[in-house]
Amino acid sequence: MKKLLNQVERVELEMLQGIAKAHPQYLKKLPDYNVLVRAQPKTDKVALVSGGGSGHEPAHGGFVGTGMLDAAVAGAVFTSPTPDQVEAAIREVATPAGVLLVVKNYTGDIMNFEMAAEMAEMDGIKCMTVVTNDDVAVQDSLYTTGRRGVAGTIFVHKIAGAKAEQGASLEEVQAVAQKVVDNVRTMGAALSPCTVPAAGKPGFEIGEDEMEVGIGIHGEPGTHKEKIMSANDITDHLLGKILADIDYTGHEVAVLVNGAGATPLMELYIINNRVADVLAEKGIKVYKTLVGNYMTSLEMAGFSISLLRLDDELRALLDAPADTPAYKA
Amino acid sequence: MKKLLNQVERVELEMLQGIAKAHPQYLKKLPDYNVLVRAQPKTDKVALVSGGGSGHEPAHGGFVGTGMLDAAVAGAVFTSPTPDQVEAAIREVATPAGVLLVVKNYTGDIMNFEMAAEMAEMDGIKCMTVVTNDDVAVQDSLYTTGRRGVAGTIFVHKIAGAKAEQGASLEEVQAVAQKVVDNVRTMGAALSPCTVPAAGKPGFEIGEDEMEVGIGIHGEPGTHKEKIMSANDITDHLLGKILADIDYTGHEVAVLVNGAGATPLMELYIINNRVADVLAEKGIKVYKTLVGNYMTSLEMAGFSISLLRLDDELRALLDAPADTPAYKA
Repeated sequence: MKKLLNQVERVELEMLQGIAKAHPQYLKKLPDYNVLVRAQPKTDKVALVSGGGSGHEPAHGGFVGTGMLDAAVAGAVFTSPTPDQVEAAIREVATPAGVLLVVKNYTGDIMNFEMAAEMAEMDGIKCMTVVTNDDVAVQDSLYTTGRRGVAGTIFVHKIAGAKAEQGASLEEVQAVAQKVVDNVRTMGAALSPCTVPAAGKPGFEIGEDEMEVGIGIHGEPGTHKEKIMSANDITDHLLGKILADIDYTGHEVAVLVNGAGATPLMELYIINNRVADVLAEKGIKVYKTLVGNYMTSLEMAGFSISLLRLDDELRALLDAPADTPAYKA
Repeated sequence: MKKLLNQVERVELEMLQGIAKAHPQYLKKLPDYNVLVRAQPKTDKVALVSGGGSGHEPAHGGFVGTGMLDAAVAGAVFTSPTPDQVEAAIREVATPAGVLLVVKNYTGDIMNFEMAAEMAEMDGIKCMTVVTNDDVAVQDSLYTTGRRGVAGTIFVHKIAGAKAEQGASLEEVQAVAQKVVDNVRTMGAALSPCTVPAAGKPGFEIGEDEMEVGIGIHGEPGTHKEKIMSANDITDHLLGKILADIDYTGHEVAVLVNGAGATPLMELYIINNRVADVLAEKGIKVYKTLVGNYMTSLEMAGFSISLLRLDDELRALLDAPADTPAYKA
């Protein structure tokens, strides 16, 4: 295992300290928890809390700031945060307007965020939850009942965060978050595995001429291996699955070509070149495109494509101001 | 070689097309050249033209936009752009106020940008050049006389771009660019090589327990190999070389912890955690920190640290608005 770290036991802590020292204008770390919260708390709006295992950077800490998250909870690498961590985050940022929890669909995350919300609610903090499940690769997986929540979650952070910033009620913020969930689909593929520091060896083995199709974001293998294809062919394959899942005809879309961590921007832009051409051929208009590392899997080489079907409300909220370390609009 | 591409001969073109399709609000590709220029040309300010070989994305195309570059010229991977490409970029964005060429110190880049400037000047376009040479690892290298220009170049784009946007003269923009060059130092290390698509094999070999110290940005080996160290030890080593080169005492600095392409943000933030601590111990105040992939070497795993010594003028220009695909302020 070749990594830039000091001690395996300290990677999450030192990373969070490094984020807090890099971006003090945006966020700070809670002294007793692996939780990042806004440097300037907002007390008059719905608070957004998200998180999950570490290893997905910049998700989730990089999205703490104006117009997106109020708190991000960081579990150990690819491991759900504990209920007391999530509860600490909720208590720190809770306002009378309530707290929306944005949770990716993994059994551990669901359970631990739910327990935390129940504990907070016993003290009168109003909580609602939205669960993202954008991955069209699998119906159920090793870690989930139902589809996995993956990179499309970024659009929930952006859009629900903007709605909250505008002063909407908890029910309204939850409703628009759910609207994003209902309209976003994602699928990914990988050329290489990644290594969880505490495990010390790659999550799967793969041949020099193979790729994993239908990957999640926790270093697990995909649904199946295939011979490596051209960038255009693999793009067509993933897009085909996405476009078959819900009807995008006649809608404008937002596109996210998300890097898994070790894939150069050069390759992500080559992918986007094909995504743009295929959507143009199908008469699906692209309103906005994001290309880069938004929801990663450590140093995995790979990518995912997300398509969000837009309406006027989602379009306006996507364009609304955001100012965070990893996302500015 | 495992890469997401279609044909080796088309990686630069398809990448640039993919960038242009992702970010039409910022930039467009010249039809006949691998050159990206602002979508909305500015005709009343000094124009900034930069570039170099491809493979450093988001540099340089990702920095085309308000407050940074007017044009970015993309050579083949790790290969200087040709004089006619550079000349096309100059002619496209030239204004009566003149053109500043920001060139990293590599023999081919220097020669080709110079030839292009001479050709443009014959038609009355006023050109000046600044050459970046921030790498403290080597005095001369395989590809340079004098130090190499590496990630510190990003600060030149940002600060000279802001000065130009404010309406300064060509001489003033060149002077502030040179001031950045005089005050920025960089050093890097790598854990893995990268593979130029046209070469098909990695640029160097390295053992599982080794790292390359003093790397450039073209996939070449560093000054020497060492046994892999902890993140803190390698950070101390690189910072030590930087801090010994010019006197930072009593100055505020801007920090750039730059990823080489395949290094996860987790590791870059662990590095930054140490950078911040060391600078705090030395009484050097950090004004701003950037962490991420700004000047990459394809899928190399590694990083560099840059420190820019600030004064009031540089601080203000660093904070000035910028709106580009890869840098927003």
